[in-house]
Amino acid sequence: MKAIKVFKIGGAVLDDAELLERFIIGFLRAEGPKILVHGGGRLANRLSEALGLEVKIHNGRRITDEATLQIAVMAYSGWSNKLLVSKIKAQGGNALGLSGADLNWLKVVKRPVKEIDFGWVGDVQAVDIAPLQEMIFKDWLPVISCIGADNSGSLLNINADTIATEIAIGFQNAGLKTQLLFCFEKEGLLNQEGQVIPKLALQEFDALLATEVLNGGIIPKIENALSAVRKGVSEVWVGYFESPGEGGTLFTH
Amino acid sequence: MKAIKVFKIGGAVLDDAELLERFIIGFLRAEGPKILVHGGGRLANRLSEALGLEVKIHNGRRITDEATLQIAVMAYSGWSNKLLVSKIKAQGGNALGLSGADLNWLKVVKRPVKEIDFGWVGDVQAVDIAPLQEMIFKDWLPVISCIGADNSGSLLNINADTIATEIAIGFQNAGLKTQLLFCFEKEGLLNQEGQVIPKLALQEFDALLATEVLNGGIIPKIENALSAVRKGVSEVWVGYFESPGEGGTLFTH
Repeated sequence: MKAIKVFKIGGAVLDDAELLERFIIGFLRAEGPKILVHGGGRLANRLSEALGLEVKIHNGRRITDEATLQIAVMAYSGWSNKLLVSKIKAQGGNALGLSGADLNWLKVVKRPVKEIDFGWVGDVQAVDIAPLQEMIFKDWLPVISCIGADNSGSLLNINADTIATEIAIGFQNAGLKTQLLFCFEKEGLLNQEGQVIPKLALQEFDALLATEVLNGGIIPKIENALSAVRKGVSEVWVGYFESPGEGGTLFTH
Repeated sequence: MKAIKVFKIGGAVLDDAELLERFIIGFLRAEGPKILVHGGGRLANRLSEALGLEVKIHNGRRITDEATLQIAVMAYSGWSNKLLVSKIKAQGGNALGLSGADLNWLKVVKRPVKEIDFGWVGDVQAVDIAPLQEMIFKDWLPVISCIGADNSGSLLNINADTIATEIAIGFQNAGLKTQLLFCFEKEGLLNQEGQVIPKLALQEFDALLATEVLNGGIIPKIENALSAVRKGVSEVWVGYFESPGEGGTLFTH
C-alpha cells in the first residue's frame, strides 16, 4: 500500500479562494490515501472583532473563553470545514468533514489550570485511528477541523498542527507507512543561497541553525516538523501548498 | 432488521441545554438504527442580530444572502452539529456529524430565480442513501445539519424537514422499513378534549380538520408530516421530544 499522507493546510491558504483552489487541485493529485487537517483562525479573529469580543492573549497564546470557543467551533468545524468539503467536491473529490469530537477517535482533556487558565483548550491524550482508517479504505477523504470534546461533552479548541502530528503518529504506530505534510506559502527550508534544502535529518538541524540564516516565517513550521519527527513520524514534509510532497524540505530522523 | 428511524429535532429543543439533554437520552434509548437531522435557526438569528445584519424575509420565507449563508453554515454545521455530537458522546453514543455537502450523498441545486431570488438556498434533487447506510451499519450515528453543496462547490441552505423527509423516502425506496419522527415541544395532535390522537390516516385528516380545533403551534408540523406521508414515507410520527416514538401521533397512508 502507498504511504498514508496526513496534510495540514495553513490559515493563509484557507483564507484565499484562489490559493485554496490551487491547493485542492494539488492535494487531490497527490497519490495514496490521504487525510486533511485544518484550522481557520483568521475567520475566527474577524468574527470576534465584528462581535466586539476582546481577544485575550497570555504570552502569545490565546485564552479561549466561552464566546471564543463558540466562534472557533463555528469558524473551524462550520465554515472552514464545509468550505473545504464543498470545494473538494467541486474538483471531483469525495470528502467527509469531521472534527475530533465525532466518533470518539480523538481522546482529549481540558488543559489543566496551572499558573494560567487557558479556558476551553484541549490537550490530546490518544488517537484511535480505526475510524479514520475505515474512512480512507472506502475512499472517503477525511477533512478534520481542530475541535474536540472531552468525555463530559465539553467542546474544546485544539492546535491543528498537534492533531495532524498525532494522527500521523497513530497510523505509523499501527505499522502503516505515513507521511506528514505541512502545506503553506513558502517553498520549504532555504539555505543561504536561497535554495531549498531538500532533505534534513534531525541531528543535522542544530548544525544548520548555527551556520545558516533561516527565512524568518518558516521557523515555527520547522519547529512543528522537528517536533513531529522527534515524536516518531518518519517523514515530515514542509513546503509550498500548490504541489504538496514535491520540492520542499523532507525532515527525517 | 428493526425499522430505520430518521429523527428531526426542533430548534427550541436544540436551543435549551436541559431540553437537549433530555432529548438525547430518549433518542439514544430508541431502538434500531437511527439518523438525526437538525437545523439551528435561533443561533443564526442571534448571530445575524449581533453582527447587525438585516434579516430579509419575503412572504415569510428568509432570503439567504452571502453573509446569511456563512452564518447558517457556522450555526448549523458548526456549533449546533458539534454540540449535538459532543452531548451524544457524553451520553455514551457514537455520533458522526455531517452535512449534505459531505460525501456527495445529497444532490441539491440552487433554487432557480423566479419572481424572487431566495439567494443561497438549495432544493433537494436526490438522495443517495448508501453512505448513510454504511455509517449506521457500523453503529456510527449520523447527525446531519441542513447545509448542502451543488456540483460547482457552492454551499446552500436547505430546509431541515425536507432533508429528513427525503432521507426517509430514500431508505424506504431501498426496501428498508423506515419511520420519520418529528420531535418537538408538543405531545402530538390533540382532539377537542385535549387528548392525543394516536393514529391518523391521510384520508382522515381533512375530515378531522373540519370537525376539530387543532392546537395552533402544531399545524406546520402536521403539514410536514402529511407532506412526508404523501411523498411515500409509510410511518411519520409527531410528538414530544423527550420520548420519541412513544405517545404522540402516528400519520400513515
